[in-house]
Amino acid sequence: MAGKVIGEGNQPLICTPLVGKTEELILSELNNVLEKKPDIIEWRADFFEGLANTNEVVLIAKQIKANAEDIPIIFTVRSFREGGQPISLSDKEVIDINVAICRYTAVEYIDCELNNRPEYFKLLRRIASENNTKIIASFHDFHFTPDREILLNKFSEATNYGADVVKVAVMANDLSDVLTLLNVTLEGKNTIDIPVITVSMGEFGALTRMIGGVFGSAVTFAVGQSSSAPGQLPIEDLRTVLNIVQKSIG
Amino acid sequence: MAGKVIGEGNQPLICTPLVGKTEELILSELNNVLEKKPDIIEWRADFFEGLANTNEVVLIAKQIKANAEDIPIIFTVRSFREGGQPISLSDKEVIDINVAICRYTAVEYIDCELNNRPEYFKLLRRIASENNTKIIASFHDFHFTPDREILLNKFSEATNYGADVVKVAVMANDLSDVLTLLNVTLEGKNTIDIPVITVSMGEFGALTRMIGGVFGSAVTFAVGQSSSAPGQLPIEDLRTVLNIVQKSIG
Repeated sequence: MAGKVIGEGNQPLICTPLVGKTEELILSELNNVLEKKPDIIEWRADFFEGLANTNEVVLIAKQIKANAEDIPIIFTVRSFREGGQPISLSDKEVIDINVAICRYTAVEYIDCELNNRPEYFKLLRRIASENNTKIIASFHDFHFTPDREILLNKFSEATNYGADVVKVAVMANDLSDVLTLLNVTLEGKNTIDIPVITVSMGEFGALTRMIGGVFGSAVTFAVGQSSSAPGQLPIEDLRTVLNIVQKSIG
Repeated sequence: MAGKVIGEGNQPLICTPLVGKTEELILSELNNVLEKKPDIIEWRADFFEGLANTNEVVLIAKQIKANAEDIPIIFTVRSFREGGQPISLSDKEVIDINVAICRYTAVEYIDCELNNRPEYFKLLRRIASENNTKIIASFHDFHFTPDREILLNKFSEATNYGADVVKVAVMANDLSDVLTLLNVTLEGKNTIDIPVITVSMGEFGALTRMIGGVFGSAVTFAVGQSSSAPGQLPIEDLRTVLNIVQKSIG
């Protein structure tokens, strides 16, 4: 089986996060998650206690990649300001880790926040291209759902940076936020050239994890062993709903 | 078990239609449908070949009600102009059948299209109230989704007529129609005093049958034995999705 590619196929890819704190916990979590057959796995390395040791990070990434075989991996150090764990590293140090991941591992995707300084983003873009690694340019807001124009602007920013995929994950405080996100997804799908990943977080936002794929979101995040954001469903439930949605929409 | 009431409870009621052409087919369909434990059953009497014989219609309605026990029944003669079967009766003759159903059966709900002449609607309202039958004032468009304002206006019309429930079912030709319908549902729920039933029909509209309840739709229609409108899911699939949605939204 060849690995799946974000933006290909007619169903959103189901991605499960790894959020272990230690190498041992990460690898045991990986084993549990693999049994549930996700389409893609995101290592949220900001949860890893040894993040400051780049060699160790690279070694774990290699092990994850080896064990996951054809399942593509997203390497992510989510910043604290966008909902990640508190870490002691500067933005530049995080970029350097991302560069090492591109250079020394076969990880397929690197998440890079749009909020990064442009020169950092451009540096990573260059190294990633040299190493055939794809970049997911991301934007998160754990407090609210910004206006339509602001969200659409994130898509433009990502394409301007030459990102391969753009991701927008924002908190839905009510059901109209959910409709805003779905509307923006639909517009994004119809207007920009790279795959779009969109998520409404929170209780109401859970709906977007189920039906966002129909509106054009290329990936949906589900709980394998542990959740990495509010509103994620267990992978089994999500897969059940996606299959029924797929059957109904044809 | 007491019968369920439209607009009560925290999940939309699942309604399955009966679309048999003869008494025998209707009653065998009813038996099949009852095994699937719908919350409510709609007899689409416009499919019944003997519709012109009011006595026969009343007798069948009584049998349906008796067999369905505590499951509430909606009696519906859908007009041809709103997507029903071609029938030989005038609008006034249909109102007379509805009056007979109110007077001589224990059927809980009568569907009456908003498109009826006001004096017919008012007559039925009076008789229904005298007999403790509830009226679902309905609007259907099998071709497209009208603008938000037009749909919201249907809600107002229904409350002006003193309807007990309002139903709007319109064709979704694309995903933005689905978002319009969900948006109108949310607004209706927050602004009018009677329960709202909304449906987007067609392939894309199937999504509203799954998640419309979260936005405020009180009933969702599913296939028991046969479908009565485009986009209906099998009741088993719909129930599976509703349960996962309910669990996720809390």
